[in-house]
Amino acid sequence: MFKKPLLLAAVALQFAFVAQAQQEPVNLDVVHRIKQEGLKNSQVMETAFYLTDVSGPRLSGSPGLDRANQWAKNKLTEWGLKNAHLEEWGEFGKGWEIEKSYIAMTAPYYQHLIATPKAWTPGTNGPVKAKAVLVEIEKEEDLQKYKGQLAGKIILTKLDSEAKTSFEADAKRHSHDDLEKLAMSPEATGNTNSSWTPERIAQYRARMALRNKAAEFFKAEGAAVILSSRGGIHGTHFTSNGAPYAKDAAPALPELEMGLEDYGRLVRLLEAKQPVELEVETKTKFHTDNLKGYNIIAEIPGTHKKLKDEVVMLGGHIDSWHAATGATDNAAGVAVMMEAVRILQAMGIQPKRTIRIALWGGEEQGLHGSRGYVKQHFGDPATMKLTKEHEKLSAYYNLDNGTGKIRGVYLQGNDAVRPLMEAWLAPFHDLGATTVTIRNTGGTDHLAFDAVGLPGFQFIQDEIEYDTRTHHTNQDTYERLQADDLKQAATIVASIVYHTAMRDKLVPRKPLPKPRQAS
Amino acid sequence: MFKKPLLLAAVALQFAFVAQAQQEPVNLDVVHRIKQEGLKNSQVMETAFYLTDVSGPRLSGSPGLDRANQWAKNKLTEWGLKNAHLEEWGEFGKGWEIEKSYIAMTAPYYQHLIATPKAWTPGTNGPVKAKAVLVEIEKEEDLQKYKGQLAGKIILTKLDSEAKTSFEADAKRHSHDDLEKLAMSPEATGNTNSSWTPERIAQYRARMALRNKAAEFFKAEGAAVILSSRGGIHGTHFTSNGAPYAKDAAPALPELEMGLEDYGRLVRLLEAKQPVELEVETKTKFHTDNLKGYNIIAEIPGTHKKLKDEVVMLGGHIDSWHAATGATDNAAGVAVMMEAVRILQAMGIQPKRTIRIALWGGEEQGLHGSRGYVKQHFGDPATMKLTKEHEKLSAYYNLDNGTGKIRGVYLQGNDAVRPLMEAWLAPFHDLGATTVTIRNTGGTDHLAFDAVGLPGFQFIQDEIEYDTRTHHTNQDTYERLQADDLKQAATIVASIVYHTAMRDKLVPRKPLPKPRQAS
Repeated sequence: MFKKPLLLAAVALQFAFVAQAQQEPVNLDVVHRIKQEGLKNSQVMETAFYLTDVSGPRLSGSPGLDRANQWAKNKLTEWGLKNAHLEEWGEFGKGWEIEKSYIAMTAPYYQHLIATPKAWTPGTNGPVKAKAVLVEIEKEEDLQKYKGQLAGKIILTKLDSEAKTSFEADAKRHSHDDLEKLAMSPEATGNTNSSWTPERIAQYRARMALRNKAAEFFKAEGAAVILSSRGGIHGTHFTSNGAPYAKDAAPALPELEMGLEDYGRLVRLLEAKQPVELEVETKTKFHTDNLKGYNIIAEIPGTHKKLKDEVVMLGGHIDSWHAATGATDNAAGVAVMMEAVRILQAMGIQPKRTIRIALWGGEEQGLHGSRGYVKQHFGDPATMKLTKEHEKLSAYYNLDNGTGKIRGVYLQGNDAVRPLMEAWLAPFHDLGATTVTIRNTGGTDHLAFDAVGLPGFQFIQDEIEYDTRTHHTNQDTYERLQADDLKQAATIVASIVYHTAMRDKLVPRKPLPKPRQAS
Repeated sequence: MFKKPLLLAAVALQFAFVAQAQQEPVNLDVVHRIKQEGLKNSQVMETAFYLTDVSGPRLSGSPGLDRANQWAKNKLTEWGLKNAHLEEWGEFGKGWEIEKSYIAMTAPYYQHLIATPKAWTPGTNGPVKAKAVLVEIEKEEDLQKYKGQLAGKIILTKLDSEAKTSFEADAKRHSHDDLEKLAMSPEATGNTNSSWTPERIAQYRARMALRNKAAEFFKAEGAAVILSSRGGIHGTHFTSNGAPYAKDAAPALPELEMGLEDYGRLVRLLEAKQPVELEVETKTKFHTDNLKGYNIIAEIPGTHKKLKDEVVMLGGHIDSWHAATGATDNAAGVAVMMEAVRILQAMGIQPKRTIRIALWGGEEQGLHGSRGYVKQHFGDPATMKLTKEHEKLSAYYNLDNGTGKIRGVYLQGNDAVRPLMEAWLAPFHDLGATTVTIRNTGGTDHLAFDAVGLPGFQFIQDEIEYDTRTHHTNQDTYERLQADDLKQAATIVASIVYHTAMRDKLVPRKPLPKPRQAS
């Protein structure tokens, strides 16, 4: 793999320096005080309550996100952080929220069903009572057999998956072996969507293309409502967007997502030629008065004459999907990061460098908030034209893998950071944070920083119920939050941010990446 | 403990006889054919589909139960059983079903909620939009502080329990150790509500009394709707009856049950003094044209000149609670028992004794169907006045502990049956049915037979998700059924019923119990 000789030389020098350096210093007195404040005076669950229960679902562009943004800005100000503000990262698109959602089977007998409108789909414009039709489509030509049959109907498609009983727990923590496996990885590979092989991507694209063709067909035929399922059992269902949020996107049909039981019952009845009638009434509202997207930014200003212009950042995305209150995705991360700065503020620390918290918007639709911020402040990964600020950012720490406590950190391929992280995690081994892995992890906002060569890190977290129950489901609620885990995480982040702000040098960097448009 | 001398003598004789008897014979050719039919040509899942998805919830007295009763009667007839009929067991009370169920939080923001009207509660008579009020009542006097404040309001009471994340699987099977523990029990104690200590019963009664006082108060104050929760997480919620079903029962307030998340969110918001507004629209229908309750009875007639008047019974209750389709409670048991007689019928067996299947109604409200049947046919446990038929019943086998396969049988304190059961289970050890325990088990219809001294047995079954997800929940649906388990169970029951029908003697009995009214 080609790398520019100049850059390689610079990196070699940097690594050599670190190798000869003293052991990374850790201020154990400060660690002790952070633990006292973070574990004994925690406000993390109260913060989480306001982000979830009080604000509600925080879909990008929605009033719920606005409520959470305002609350977070005010709370950070109240805690004494400086210059807390909403900062526009660019144009997002239409806001959207649910104003009514009701669906029931009315024949062969009455059964109210658990379902949620897909994001950015329209409502039904009043109650719709209609026959359900099961369409079976494996290729585009299959659509033609339904020509003229779908007007006014409620459409279901055959399910790929069925509700299987699991004899494994929904919730789990990393075992010693899991962590050992992570730690002993010799390569900086890992979770950066590695399960997405080219075949899988091709299959996914083909499926999406067929889905879009089918959606157009159903609309052209005048179908009333589409029902679909992306899985989830026992009343849990997964959700996603059902239509584009761009301001000029064409309107879609009303569509609701359901769990495997209610959906499965309808499908089985239809397969057995039992007539099924449904009643659906949904009302959704689009918000087009402000198409902008925002991040929330606030600071604990640096106090060192020379270093106060340098910055340590921490953050997580505050937006969520719409079917629940996004407790683990990602009120958890936001509450922890807010708690981390609250701890430092409550201790009255005077950091050398400026500590800046960022609560990102638009993450769920493609890391929009963090990418917009990075482009405005640090540089464009397409061109790798960098700003003055790029020189001044020491590191960015992210939290967005659910409610589980911190078990370590992904170095994101940055070997030079290992001694720092090992030293900084050492006082937290007894809280379960032991593991430093060279691996990458993907899927969230640290990637925006990594893309322009800035040190951006996501922590290793216990999974708890992330994949089974919470991530993008209708059950990602306050109940899913593990208070002790969030306290632990806030304490560790506060300490790592503190030490990043106080060390003599910036956190060492990887070689700059190539411009994306060149690759 | 006093026992009548005469009875003791009779028992001693009976036991002595069994101890000298030959090993209980088993017809392995028939066992082989039963396994072939039951494991390879099974119709148990199709039967379950019609009982659940097609019939719908089967609350006692409801149209759903009527549909299932008619379907089962017709199916048994179609399979060739004789004299399939609905047999009245007595007066049940009002039928009831849900015709609409919608609830959402409309302020501070919109959130549709998962809930189900409690059985036998009235509807709201159109949509109700009202403020939610949290009442905290620990004793009757606490009610007075809400005097004059509840008219038109939606009432919530503080929760006893919260949604805890479990790191254990929802579904489990009996381990070898579990079964060993059951088998090695020296006493015929066990599950007959043994956890109900006098203290617990007293606490429960006090709680129920306070609950009733509160319900009267809310009604007198003119509250609009009551919300409550008996637990359940991730979209699963438990359900029960909310008002009496007796024909002259006083009307209650509309009441809905919810899972811990949706309920918890409302409670937390109210505790934090956030105004909460809800919209509720429920419609329920009472059926009073026929207050009778029914069992479904059908037979494979006996063919032996002397023994054909003797009867072997098998059954399970066909009624269910109302929030789902009662798949594991107890479509599973019904489907298995129906499948067992289908297997025997398909094999063209000519049993010496008559084999009679009974699908009970009214079990969920107190074993009404089986108790009524036993009183009509065999005797009254209150007086222990017995009928001629009492002499002719060999045994009753019941299935009502969910979808899990049979791991053995509870002897219900009847030591004399041990050699029979051990012999009959031996060919099914390789299917996991190994355990014979002297213990009692309670909670279902075999108790009606046991109460008049007839051999009534419930099998030991794997629990699967019974306590966590299915038993009396809104998620007791077709998906919960384990096809292989049901096939195994039907096969074993068919064989045990066959051997009971063919053996020389009736199944040995315990001493007759004392009349209940005398105890």
